[in-house]
Amino acid sequence: MHHELGLDRRALEALADVSYSPADVGAAIASGSFSTEAMVVAPCSMKSLASIAHGLSDNLLTRAADVALKERRRLVLMVRETPFNLAHLRNMTAVTEMGAIVFPPMPAFYHRPQSIDELVGDTVERVLAMIGVESAMPRSWSGL
Amino acid sequence: MHHELGLDRRALEALADVSYSPADVGAAIASGSFSTEAMVVAPCSMKSLASIAHGLSDNLLTRAADVALKERRRLVLMVRETPFNLAHLRNMTAVTEMGAIVFPPMPAFYHRPQSIDELVGDTVERVLAMIGVESAMPRSWSGL
Amino acid sequence: MHHELGLDRRALEALADVSYSPADVGAAIASGSFSTEAMVVAPCSMKSLASIAHGLSDNLLTRAADVALKERRRLVLMVRETPFNLAHLRNMTAVTEMGAIVFPPMPAFYHRPQSIDELVGDTVERVLAMIGVESAMPRSWSGL
Amino acid sequence: MHHELGLDRRALEALADVSYSPADVGAAIASGSFSTEAMVVAPCSMKSLASIAHGLSDNLLTRAADVALKERRRLVLMVRETPFNLAHLRNMTAVTEMGAIVFPPMPAFYHRPQSIDELVGDTVERVLAMIGVESAMPRSWSGL
Amino acid sequence: MHHELGLDRRALEALADVSYSPADVGAAIASGSFSTEAMVVAPCSMKSLASIAHGLSDNLLTRAADVALKERRRLVLMVRETPFNLAHLRNMTAVTEMGAIVFPPMPAFYHRPQSIDELVGDTVERVLAMIGVESAMPRSWSGL
Amino acid sequence: MHHELGLDRRALEALADVSYSPADVGAAIASGSFSTEAMVVAPCSMKSLASIAHGLSDNLLTRAADVALKERRRLVLMVRETPFNLAHLRNMTAVTEMGAIVFPPMPAFYHRPQSIDELVGDTVERVLAMIGVESAMPRSWSGL
Amino acid sequence: MHHELGLDRRALEALADVSYSPADVGAAIASGSFSTEAMVVAPCSMKSLASIAHGLSDNLLTRAADVALKERRRLVLMVRETPFNLAHLRNMTAVTEMGAIVFPPMPAFYHRPQSIDELVGDTVERVLAMIGVESAMPRSWSGL
Amino acid sequence: MHHELGLDRRALEALADVSYSPADVGAAIASGSFSTEAMVVAPCSMKSLASIAHGLSDNLLTRAADVALKERRRLVLMVRETPFNLAHLRNMTAVTEMGAIVFPPMPAFYHRPQSIDELVGDTVERVLAMIGVESAMPRSWSGL
Amino acid sequence: MHHELGLDRRALEALADVSYSPADVGAAIASGSFSTEAMVVAPCSMKSLASIAHGLSDNLLTRAADVALKERRRLVLMVRETPFNLAHLRNMTAVTEMGAIVFPPMPAFYHRPQSIDELVGDTVERVLAMIGVESAMPRSWSGL
Amino acid sequence: MHHELGLDRRALEALADVSYSPADVGAAIASGSFSTEAMVVAPCSMKSLASIAHGLSDNLLTRAADVALKERRRLVLMVRETPFNLAHLRNMTAVTEMGAIVFPPMPAFYHRPQSIDELVGDTVERVLAMIGVESAMPRSWSGL
Amino acid sequence: MHHELGLDRRALEALADVSYSPADVGAAIASGSFSTEAMVVAPCSMKSLASIAHGLSDNLLTRAADVALKERRRLVLMVRETPFNLAHLRNMTAVTEMGAIVFPPMPAFYHRPQSIDELVGDTVERVLAMIGVESAMPRSWSGL
Amino acid sequence: MHHELGLDRRALEALADVSYSPADVGAAIASGSFSTEAMVVAPCSMKSLASIAHGLSDNLLTRAADVALKERRRLVLMVRETPFNLAHLRNMTAVTEMGAIVFPPMPAFYHRPQSIDELVGDTVERVLAMIGVESAMPRSWSGL
Repeated sequence: MHHELGLDRRALEALADVSYSPADVGAAIASGSFSTEAMVVAPCSMKSLASIAHGLSDNLLTRAADVALKERRRLVLMVRETPFNLAHLRNMTAVTEMGAIVFPPMPAFYHRPQSIDELVGDTVERVLAMIGVESAMPRSWSGL
Repeated sequence: MHHELGLDRRALEALADVSYSPADVGAAIASGSFSTEAMVVAPCSMKSLASIAHGLSDNLLTRAADVALKERRRLVLMVRETPFNLAHLRNMTAVTEMGAIVFPPMPAFYHRPQSIDELVGDTVERVLAMIGVESAMPRSWSGL
Repeated sequence: MHHELGLDRRALEALADVSYSPADVGAAIASGSFSTEAMVVAPCSMKSLASIAHGLSDNLLTRAADVALKERRRLVLMVRETPFNLAHLRNMTAVTEMGAIVFPPMPAFYHRPQSIDELVGDTVERVLAMIGVESAMPRSWSGL
Repeated sequence: MHHELGLDRRALEALADVSYSPADVGAAIASGSFSTEAMVVAPCSMKSLASIAHGLSDNLLTRAADVALKERRRLVLMVRETPFNLAHLRNMTAVTEMGAIVFPPMPAFYHRPQSIDELVGDTVERVLAMIGVESAMPRSWSGL
Repeated sequence: MHHELGLDRRALEALADVSYSPADVGAAIASGSFSTEAMVVAPCSMKSLASIAHGLSDNLLTRAADVALKERRRLVLMVRETPFNLAHLRNMTAVTEMGAIVFPPMPAFYHRPQSIDELVGDTVERVLAMIGVESAMPRSWSGL
Repeated sequence: MHHELGLDRRALEALADVSYSPADVGAAIASGSFSTEAMVVAPCSMKSLASIAHGLSDNLLTRAADVALKERRRLVLMVRETPFNLAHLRNMTAVTEMGAIVFPPMPAFYHRPQSIDELVGDTVERVLAMIGVESAMPRSWSGL
Repeated sequence: MHHELGLDRRALEALADVSYSPADVGAAIASGSFSTEAMVVAPCSMKSLASIAHGLSDNLLTRAADVALKERRRLVLMVRETPFNLAHLRNMTAVTEMGAIVFPPMPAFYHRPQSIDELVGDTVERVLAMIGVESAMPRSWSGL
Repeated sequence: MHHELGLDRRALEALADVSYSPADVGAAIASGSFSTEAMVVAPCSMKSLASIAHGLSDNLLTRAADVALKERRRLVLMVRETPFNLAHLRNMTAVTEMGAIVFPPMPAFYHRPQSIDELVGDTVERVLAMIGVESAMPRSWSGL
Repeated sequence: MHHELGLDRRALEALADVSYSPADVGAAIASGSFSTEAMVVAPCSMKSLASIAHGLSDNLLTRAADVALKERRRLVLMVRETPFNLAHLRNMTAVTEMGAIVFPPMPAFYHRPQSIDELVGDTVERVLAMIGVESAMPRSWSGL
Repeated sequence: MHHELGLDRRALEALADVSYSPADVGAAIASGSFSTEAMVVAPCSMKSLASIAHGLSDNLLTRAADVALKERRRLVLMVRETPFNLAHLRNMTAVTEMGAIVFPPMPAFYHRPQSIDELVGDTVERVLAMIGVESAMPRSWSGL
Repeated sequence: MHHELGLDRRALEALADVSYSPADVGAAIASGSFSTEAMVVAPCSMKSLASIAHGLSDNLLTRAADVALKERRRLVLMVRETPFNLAHLRNMTAVTEMGAIVFPPMPAFYHRPQSIDELVGDTVERVLAMIGVESAMPRSWSGL
Repeated sequence: MHHELGLDRRALEALADVSYSPADVGAAIASGSFSTEAMVVAPCSMKSLASIAHGLSDNLLTRAADVALKERRRLVLMVRETPFNLAHLRNMTAVTEMGAIVFPPMPAFYHRPQSIDELVGDTVERVLAMIGVESAMPRSWSGL
């Protein structure tokens, strides 16, 4: 986040309604009884993907994802890596078999976006649609 | 291409040194004896990926890729899709086991690119590096 | 259709609200952003089944099915073949693992249907129930 | 049989040359030395399919089928179910790998049958052809 | 039930709205057209688990579970055994791949339950939540 | 037993120290807490083998075997069938992976046995050695 | 054919008793009821092999092969490629598991053939023997 | 432990003969030459299970378990989770294939325990029996 | 043979119509063009089974068996071993998948044979029946 | 060699720069430190293929191939057999997964070779190209 | 042995209590009835490993190991090779699944051994401990 | 390092040209654009092996190895453990399938090394040869 956006942790937390430390594995969202409709991991590193694929709940993020899978809730993983090696592909296959959705933020150019912001916005809108959130952005679009 | 770039076929062919029709399965590049160092499929549709993964050489592109694999030459597939379903993941796994490299054009933001052109350029540079072509663009970069 | 029902293409299209050419892979229904609740392929040939099972989106029908699977929407395949060979069975298994529902139009005789029309109607009703459509036909039935 | 045809057991047995109780696992047809050319299970319930697929010879029918497979004789299973779940598909795959033929009574409409009787008759004829029995019904037909 | 609770069959049936004999494989709940939201098997013996995992619908319970799976309805299996051998684990894996949910009644001590009744009650509440039934018991809890 | 030895059930039970009905699934030997060193199934039908391989504890014999496997005790299955079909072989492989020992009563002729009794005795002795029971028969032998 | 033999389509058809267009998927030989003893695909391209291996009946040739496999008739595929990549090998394995025979036209030199014609003739004779056709060529030979 | 029992670390350590820090991967018990008869992990979190299943010895507990497996000593894992997702089941299967025993603390009600203490005590006794420790509690019991 | 029957090689060869040395891998029967209906390996050692299962044609026997499998002729392997280890079972499974028949000489006692000769004779008769040879022994029998 | 070419061992050795006995497993070329660029097995019998596929280094040839694979050097196997049985195909798949190249000497007719010598020469040239050896034969060719 | 130690066969045999020729497949130790506690193969070549992994009992050593596995006795294989190719790893995995212990003589430096003799001695001690033999060497050590 | 060599971290770093902290996952060598020819992990613990095998890039070492695999660069893992359990073997198999080389530092005695230093030196030389580094040590050697 610091490298890509120039944001520090405080600035990010200010944007969030709620934030947790990754080390806080006992947080409410790590409990099956904490009711959610969906969970999005954005971005999802290869390390987080691997942990989720193998049930290795080593921090709050991966424990919460593990819970989402055992409670059969929608889990979307915005993996980001290129190229893929065999371990990455096996892990993406495993989480898909477990019920998660692998959603790489692959930009589409169908709309001929004019800026990186617009390009990123399109991806965000598509992910929100995936978990049933009505987008605030009114422009219709036709997907990939 | 037409949707994304506003280019028609003629304009594209004008940019190419050589171009073939997909239907021309008997073209020189479909022969194992046509000597190449590497082949890049950009972009690689889910349909082309599936054909290559299953050895279904139904046009010049997929036949040439099949030949690259049997001759053990470097083959890079710039797949573009989101989200992935299980068939996509199995196909990417299969081509990786067969020796190809799955290289989705996933943008990196480490350099804080200022425009879509720059973002696309970074990806192009990385693919060229992958097949051993010295980039014409001098700026060093640090990858994902 | 011509062999089985004596219908030509025009007659069929007259019955439909909307119809597309299989070659029109860029049609709206091939886009993930085209919102649907479910898709039924009726009948589903062994060729279409194979294409869907392997992610080989070679026409509008199989591309739309591929999209339904990646968007995790309900996809029902009314496969029709007998006997099954190993490839047919592996393909049916693959699409089931991918989330589709293999629904062969196997007639049930529990209601002692009096005509082929009634027999076909029972199957249609069951498929509609599968995708959540209230049948227009009031008679209750008890399934297989 | 009672639900579908209104036949009771006695009526059925009157139509048969020989009949056995399912519990009679020691009957002649359960012996490898009882010479047969083929065996047809019609209809074949999901339960019988599962028993045969796993070698679970829990009654005369499934024991006889098990023997047919170990003696490498033709075994045809007219499975009847819709939709298929994963267990059904795995079982059909298993029996096919073991040498059996999965033959669902899927009606064909190529001949434009005029009644359910005709439709059923077509299927019966095809199964008889599968085990080498010349049909008594002279009308040629062209299959699925 | 007799060993664990001292209840006989009559007492149990008095507590139920509807009850069926396991041998009544033709009961309404064994039909795909009998509309249900979910099915819970409590407790689920290793034998029932095995039957469901292999599609061996040998009584009303396992047939109804098989139907739930083919109709893609929620099926929760409260398996109870310890330790697990390899067959148990393979069967639990198989039913999970088929869409069922393996839900062993493993007591949680987070709430520091004061009695076995409370401990059992917690598990019951969690299962009801799993199938979307609002619990009558108001006390909030935080799950495992 | 009746076919092979001319013994009826009463005669057999007279030879045994303890005997149970197969239907008595609640017998002491079906409990993990009933302490045993080993269990031998002799002979082991293909049906019993299949039940054990899939964890389908449908009678006292197969439940006891299932318990032996979960408690990691020695379990020897004297399977008797010829030829083997694929289901038989997969079941024998499965129980071996689960920890059981497949011990077909295959006669050895190394000792040049003079009678069927002697031949059967040799096999019995070898099985007893397998579970650590000192044979009462003093003659040394050299196995297969 | 044109490249290898200098024959055009008309000349080939003149040599055949019957010939069909690959696009004629409704031809008689695509029906299970068209009675044949065996089918030979000579030569069998990697594309045809892939289609048959995956049940992708995309033209008359591959549909007819698919039918041969479902009707359990002898199907011989004279594949021709070198070297093999992993997709080719997996496809050959799949069709063999499905019951087909992979018969590459690999020349044998045991007879010390004096010309390419003789070498080709040997292979043809062996294939004919494989499908039970008495060769017209009287010279005995001893195979590979 | 704090949530469930109200015990802090000091209180627990007071109950133990020996205690180690999880970070102390060089402790004696992590060595193959430290002679033990068995190891019990109680309770065994899904994270520890995953680490052991994949050989990821990331702390003293999982390293010691890894050593137990390589030295072929008895290892009992008292996993505690509900429901299971596919990763949990695959991990339990993997450790079982590696020789460990998955022993969830699933309460049995056969004895009609009167309190949670008694219920927990039964499980403890059964685990001790599993590793060959004579229980101090004299009351006989009959297990599940 | 010497240990079991007291026969030496000469005596055995005197009983045979034709005999070959195992080292004579170029013998006529190792050629695909040597026409046979079936091949029986009696007895079939675990070593021969392993060679055939893996295509390791290291002597005349295993080469001839390999040829029988590639020419799709009936191959019967009278394996003799007890107990089976995992390698034996995997090899028997492999040859069965390849088309061979695993036929252990497991004695049946249904006929209450009076001597070892009779017992062996029964097995021989059954194998001969398996390959379509009319037995010279007139007594009917009922198999296992 | 004797059957096919009429050459004896001495004549062959005279053509070679260096030759070893197959029994000389301690020869220099069996050592990983003997530096080579590639190894070609021509022809490669089904027996040698099987040995290499399973790591069964039973003579100098298969040991040298095993070393080539462990040192990750190019290994080309000119397998020669027809038809293939399942063991052959599994072995070819295994060696390909291990990094070897299966290169059957399948003649191509694109150049319309005029003699067997020319046909063989084409194959030799292609293999030499595969291992990076410039052919002495100047005529360009276009491969399969 | 000659290369590594300068010992000839006679010198080695003088050190042994008993020695057999590898060709003596009928020796006492190849019989299941020859009672042993454990068997160590030191060193275990890749060839012996492959033979054991596939049940290919081609000499006394591999036959004895095969017997150890079928009798479920402890078998320790001191494999020695580097690097491993895929066949080596698959073979080591197979024997481990079959119950053997792969024990490469990998030196540990924890004790800071002062000489090769000491280093070898440590490994020998560890293997002896593995099969329950009290070492004669008193110095305690802490393993890897 | 401290246990085996008596070196502390400072002493080791003094020997290195460059050194990084394992926690520094953003270091230059973790980037795909950092150009390297090969990477050697010496020694490679079972924990690092497991992380690499599953794509779990939890520190700089395993992230750099993951990058090496995705960029298809040579990666050599000097694993050190004995005996191997199933997880170790599966992990070594996985990394080999992903393209890495498992290179255990198994000492060879062919040269009759006179000291541990010489023995270690031989292994180092072989690894350097594996990644194309000319050794500084002039003595020729013949490998395993």
